[in-house]
Amino acid sequence: MTAFFRSRWVEAPDHVREVPDGGLAQGFRAAGVAAGIKLSGEKDVALLVSDHPDTTSAVRFTASGVLAAPVLVTRERCRLDNLRAVAANSGNANAATGGRGLDEAARMQGAAAMVSGVSEDQVAVCSTGVIGVQLDGRTMTKGLLAASGALRPDGDADLAQAIMTTDAFEKRVTLEVDLPGGPVRISAQAKGAGMISPNFATMLCFVQTDAAVPAETADLLLGVTVKRSFDRISVDGQLSTNDTVVLLCSGASGVAVEPESDSELRFGEALDALLRQLALHIARDGEGARRVGRVLVRGGNGEGVERVARAVADSPLVKTALYGGDPNWGRIAQAVGAALPGTAPLAFDVAIEGTTVCSGGFGVPVDAEALAGAVGGDEVEFEITLPGDGFETEVFFSDLGHEYVTINADYTT
Amino acid sequence: MTAFFRSRWVEAPDHVREVPDGGLAQGFRAAGVAAGIKLSGEKDVALLVSDHPDTTSAVRFTASGVLAAPVLVTRERCRLDNLRAVAANSGNANAATGGRGLDEAARMQGAAAMVSGVSEDQVAVCSTGVIGVQLDGRTMTKGLLAASGALRPDGDADLAQAIMTTDAFEKRVTLEVDLPGGPVRISAQAKGAGMISPNFATMLCFVQTDAAVPAETADLLLGVTVKRSFDRISVDGQLSTNDTVVLLCSGASGVAVEPESDSELRFGEALDALLRQLALHIARDGEGARRVGRVLVRGGNGEGVERVARAVADSPLVKTALYGGDPNWGRIAQAVGAALPGTAPLAFDVAIEGTTVCSGGFGVPVDAEALAGAVGGDEVEFEITLPGDGFETEVFFSDLGHEYVTINADYTT
Repeated sequence: MTAFFRSRWVEAPDHVREVPDGGLAQGFRAAGVAAGIKLSGEKDVALLVSDHPDTTSAVRFTASGVLAAPVLVTRERCRLDNLRAVAANSGNANAATGGRGLDEAARMQGAAAMVSGVSEDQVAVCSTGVIGVQLDGRTMTKGLLAASGALRPDGDADLAQAIMTTDAFEKRVTLEVDLPGGPVRISAQAKGAGMISPNFATMLCFVQTDAAVPAETADLLLGVTVKRSFDRISVDGQLSTNDTVVLLCSGASGVAVEPESDSELRFGEALDALLRQLALHIARDGEGARRVGRVLVRGGNGEGVERVARAVADSPLVKTALYGGDPNWGRIAQAVGAALPGTAPLAFDVAIEGTTVCSGGFGVPVDAEALAGAVGGDEVEFEITLPGDGFETEVFFSDLGHEYVTINADYTT
Repeated sequence: MTAFFRSRWVEAPDHVREVPDGGLAQGFRAAGVAAGIKLSGEKDVALLVSDHPDTTSAVRFTASGVLAAPVLVTRERCRLDNLRAVAANSGNANAATGGRGLDEAARMQGAAAMVSGVSEDQVAVCSTGVIGVQLDGRTMTKGLLAASGALRPDGDADLAQAIMTTDAFEKRVTLEVDLPGGPVRISAQAKGAGMISPNFATMLCFVQTDAAVPAETADLLLGVTVKRSFDRISVDGQLSTNDTVVLLCSGASGVAVEPESDSELRFGEALDALLRQLALHIARDGEGARRVGRVLVRGGNGEGVERVARAVADSPLVKTALYGGDPNWGRIAQAVGAALPGTAPLAFDVAIEGTTVCSGGFGVPVDAEALAGAVGGDEVEFEITLPGDGFETEVFFSDLGHEYVTINADYTT
């Protein structure tokens, strides 16, 4: 595995180090097994357990109006601030499966609780894969039983593999974070291509730490860092029915993260860098993506700034140009205009990789060759300045190329 | 040219006949010439003139917040209810070109007025092509002069060709419409891939009739029929800076269309069928499109119905599935959920080509083979029923395939 922190848009704090050998934070065990849900025979059932009774937790779910059964079951039936286990599967999303789907998600939760020795309302369940197909409960139960026998402190790799669907590469990391009270670990495993995800590929992310974090602090920190990471990426402007992020804090290190303390700040910085880089890996993996773009929008109207950033990041014209390495800023102008109807003539600036291409709403002469060279790298930055100031936002986005069409034109059949 | 009315979603009224030989409605002359704006040497400057001083007119423009110079000049400087000429070019959109772009658009208007013998404020100007590049006024003036010498009553084909950019086929038709007072003609030429358009390819549409239509009636009818046609198509969810629809009514037939009369109803029906079919041709031509979809959404909330229809039509996942002939209704469910956050569990139905695949929010057993066969045709219909009733809308959309990526990944360079 190459170094985790790879993007120029993420600064790993000095007090954070990657643990080269990986492994889960203290107090956790995990496993991933092949239960037969995926026809390919690859790993498809994962289990994660904390051995500490007073583990704290925080969760974030998709905002979709169509929620998969496991999301409904986890949201409605769990003590979300005191979870101790996560059961997950790939190959079947258990979404749009009605009452029977809810029964199967509950059965999955019950089986995981039984094999993990924790209470049912302490088990989050997560599924990813095709939708509208019933989950086979017997296969799932067998898989969870096998997984419980395979639980290991270094099971994070197996867990990460068992939740992959169309992912081109595995996404996990273990970090050591220096806090005033001593070092703690944060381990994380993710899959998918965005909170905004294709193919019901779904974004799942599991984070474990051995720091002792009060549940309210865990919730606060997860909320803030998800907003700055998974909420800021766009693969194709789509929103999955299954997206779930779970943070578990075992406290096994004995090092506390107290509210409004230096340790909270430092822990939050580490979590922030971790989730931002994971989100960028997800955007980078976004169904055949070649390049990742970042659009940064500034201006005097918060809603307008957000609308423009989303319009640019979700524009298939901007995305195909990014794929083609084509510095076609006219498409940016088009997206800006579409996001802000009725505002013409609009005095806006556009810069690509630091070169101003549009000023006050119209093009300025540029060195076309240099510009074309500047958009040929792995990461391309677009800055848009709207009238006024006071607001700023960013969205990371993947490109749109032939691989996306190939992957998506023939998924179920 | 094959029969114009080709879609099952457009019913040509009995009192409407296609004129096989084409030609403009009486009182109009048009031309299209190669002036050298397109490097390919293809036709790129068009002129359309009404010989009747009391010609009435109506216009609709793009809603974008970034407007091209010709849109601003036409909107601000013309008597929009008494236009007599249209000057148009392809190869350069004259958008995001600042003050000099406005000067060039005004110069284009002045030159067209001079060569047509009409007043400047009676000339609409339209441009389509690459943006951010200054229009060469001298080339344009030469082109308009040449076009004025080539004006002919059957110049509609040349006009249609001179406004094409990435269009795969020419879009024009001439209809004969039986009104109570006698027959009238409606001729129309269009280009582009949507009010919602890729590549700044821009949607332009020019309609001429020899009926005598009061300006207010023309404006009313154009407003209603544009809402039911060009406003209901999506190629890629994008909005051009240059979209313009111009209706000119010469009155040369001597047959009147009076407000709130049977003649207005019949003329309106003809215009409606004409624009809907033109819009469908545009969606069909949408940058390499293989198939056209129609999403029909019903429910109790007007805004929700519209949001769901747009979300489905603009979804790259739905579009790639349409391209692949894959009846993946899970992607429809995903788009519905994304359009209506916070409404789960949502009881919605989905039918594809008349087969119910999702009822009350979850999948129902279907004959997968029959369903796959049903989505293999040129036109595929998706019906979505949300809770409640009273509202209904539709959006036509093109698919998303390799040709779209190929066309758009490398446009300017």
